Amino acid sequence: MSVRSCPMIALYTDFGVQDAYVGQMHAALARDAPGVPVIDLLNCVPNFAIRAAAHLLPALVAPLPSQTVVICVVDPGVGGSREPIAVLAGEKWFVGPDNGLLAVIEQRSTNSIRYRIVWRPDRLSHTFHGRDLFAPVAARLARQIRDGIEVVEAYDASNTGSDWADEFDAIIYIDHYGNAMTGRRFITTNSCRRLKVRGQCLDFARTFGDVSVGDAFWYENAYGLVEIAINQRSAAECYSLQLGDEIELVD
Amino acid sequence: MSVRSCPMIALYTDFGVQDAYVGQMHAALARDAPGVPVIDLLNCVPNFAIRAAAHLLPALVAPLPSQTVVICVVDPGVGGSREPIAVLAGEKWFVGPDNGLLAVIEQRSTNSIRYRIVWRPDRLSHTFHGRDLFAPVAARLARQIRDGIEVVEAYDASNTGSDWADEFDAIIYIDHYGNAMTGRRFITTNSCRRLKVRGQCLDFARTFGDVSVGDAFWYENAYGLVEIAINQRSAAECYSLQLGDEIELVD
Amino acid sequence: MSVRSCPMIALYTDFGVQDAYVGQMHAALARDAPGVPVIDLLNCVPNFAIRAAAHLLPALVAPLPSQTVVICVVDPGVGGSREPIAVLAGEKWFVGPDNGLLAVIEQRSTNSIRYRIVWRPDRLSHTFHGRDLFAPVAARLARQIRDGIEVVEAYDASNTGSDWADEFDAIIYIDHYGNAMTGRRFITTNSCRRLKVRGQCLDFARTFGDVSVGDAFWYENAYGLVEIAINQRSAAECYSLQLGDEIELVD
Repeated sequence: MSVRSCPMIALYTDFGVQDAYVGQMHAALARDAPGVPVIDLLNCVPNFAIRAAAHLLPALVAPLPSQTVVICVVDPGVGGSREPIAVLAGEKWFVGPDNGLLAVIEQRSTNSIRYRIVWRPDRLSHTFHGRDLFAPVAARLARQIRDGIEVVEAYDASNTGSDWADEFDAIIYIDHYGNAMTGRRFITTNSCRRLKVRGQCLDFARTFGDVSVGDAFWYENAYGLVEIAINQRSAAECYSLQLGDEIELVD
Repeated sequence: MSVRSCPMIALYTDFGVQDAYVGQMHAALARDAPGVPVIDLLNCVPNFAIRAAAHLLPALVAPLPSQTVVICVVDPGVGGSREPIAVLAGEKWFVGPDNGLLAVIEQRSTNSIRYRIVWRPDRLSHTFHGRDLFAPVAARLARQIRDGIEVVEAYDASNTGSDWADEFDAIIYIDHYGNAMTGRRFITTNSCRRLKVRGQCLDFARTFGDVSVGDAFWYENAYGLVEIAINQRSAAECYSLQLGDEIELVD
Repeated sequence: MSVRSCPMIALYTDFGVQDAYVGQMHAALARDAPGVPVIDLLNCVPNFAIRAAAHLLPALVAPLPSQTVVICVVDPGVGGSREPIAVLAGEKWFVGPDNGLLAVIEQRSTNSIRYRIVWRPDRLSHTFHGRDLFAPVAARLARQIRDGIEVVEAYDASNTGSDWADEFDAIIYIDHYGNAMTGRRFITTNSCRRLKVRGQCLDFARTFGDVSVGDAFWYENAYGLVEIAINQRSAAECYSLQLGDEIELVD
């Protein structure tokens, strides 16, 4: 099935789905990039959890068409000194604060290019750069306007998150079913191993249907990450799992 | 007001609105059916509640334009032996697992056609057929590509959910106001009856404004189903209503 | 950056993001205004909180392109005697119930025009005028169809909500970070003042990065309103803040 790629914008933020933040983003994008499709990739990234967010991002962008511009905002330092950057990696654009959020995307790509965002809006609020700076810049990139960004030095090892490209053996997201996703990629381990978390030791299973209702297991989730689940129950509740809990894969 | 119908895709799932699932669906659809509008009909179908979901579905699809393709995913058996199917009913397409989820739509339609989905993607995860199988198939249907599906026998009464077309006298959804929707269609009862639930016995009212603030009543909701409410209060909290609670309509 | 304005529809409701209401709105709009972009400005306006909603609305519509039609529904009296109206203010359309929800928009605009909605659908449910009346009317306005509305008298000070244009010194929204937004516009006060709420007395800060993690402050939020926050903590939890709590700005 051959389909032409068209420019597109995706949101990846900790803005939540209930509040006004996401609506403001869509309003600004409708104003600055009318006709460009905008999708909500994920707006419930755990609040302020930059390292978890940095590891979750590459797992989620696979199905996005090339040329998509992903606006990434987990930005507790908004209004402070961190710089706004754009990164071109894997034929996709990433726009966001230079606080480590884009570090894993950047380091794992063999040919990423880093840009400093020099464009500024006429009016920039102190607390909502997502709407006032990153959305307009993403709109410009989606419309092929490149004059607000400047190539900067290749990735600098002294930057925040410069050592985050390794696996992150911890829980980075808990979903509404109670499944707990980790920052460990399945390709770096194997299904013979057992997973230890909060004193539990779980076997691998291929999918939910392979275990009985109520049974716990770990598996490769659809994003290529190691995930903990109980068939038709909440693993998070049963084992009191929390964001940041460490995991260990043992023989 | 005459408006041309254009192909469109709608999501009906238990994926939740907070997690990454819905964003992945939109990403896959943007890739496979660029330019086709996609709306979120409902993504908070109660987790794993197939029968409730089967009864809620026909109530919600009425305003969708004909030719809409509805992706339906409540699929605790994902990765197991249940088959993927497509159903054409009432000039709309429904795509999902053959686990009873589409049974009520199918049985109540006088001229539904059932198809087996034979198309398979190059890469199919074990746990997210919504993104990897149902979304691409829906994209193909929206783009008038029919060669991945094959007509199968008329609906088979021995299938899962074969007797689900009857009324379902139970609570199938509780909304954020605390209103409790049931699987009983109003046209099969009448407003002289009283509704019994959890030891309460409620009178009918036409709408919220017809009772005092704090008064409980039952009514025909905007989807044609019997619903329980308290004016500007939460009926679910006041009466400890839960999904699956049985109701009875009495003279 | 010059971009042509195209017609657009935005939703501003207390329908919540989990339930079927918003999906029904999008379905009706896709049917009646195919091709017109629809964005969710905010669907978690506090339930039934008309005055808070009236003050929040003007703060959120700034980035919407002119000619946008905003469907506004916080409507506990649905099915009762309140009239449906349309208001043209600041080059944007607002459609909703005449219960005070549009009063602040209307009163603060120097040239607003008020219309009575006389168009009625073939079938109007008693409890969901958002889908059955306001969405079709918004679709007509977005498609430049004006024959379903009639200009009425200029705003009448005796209408519901007639004195709501003044500042509303109370908490009108609490977001998922735990920040508490008020109905007080920053331009009517200044940063030398301290803010009193629930026995606390807070200093002004420009942005989160200007205070230490865990420090409380008040600031001008990105919508121009006074807001209470704690850097990387929940102010709502720490101070037990609730909707409607009064605030005072003192020297």
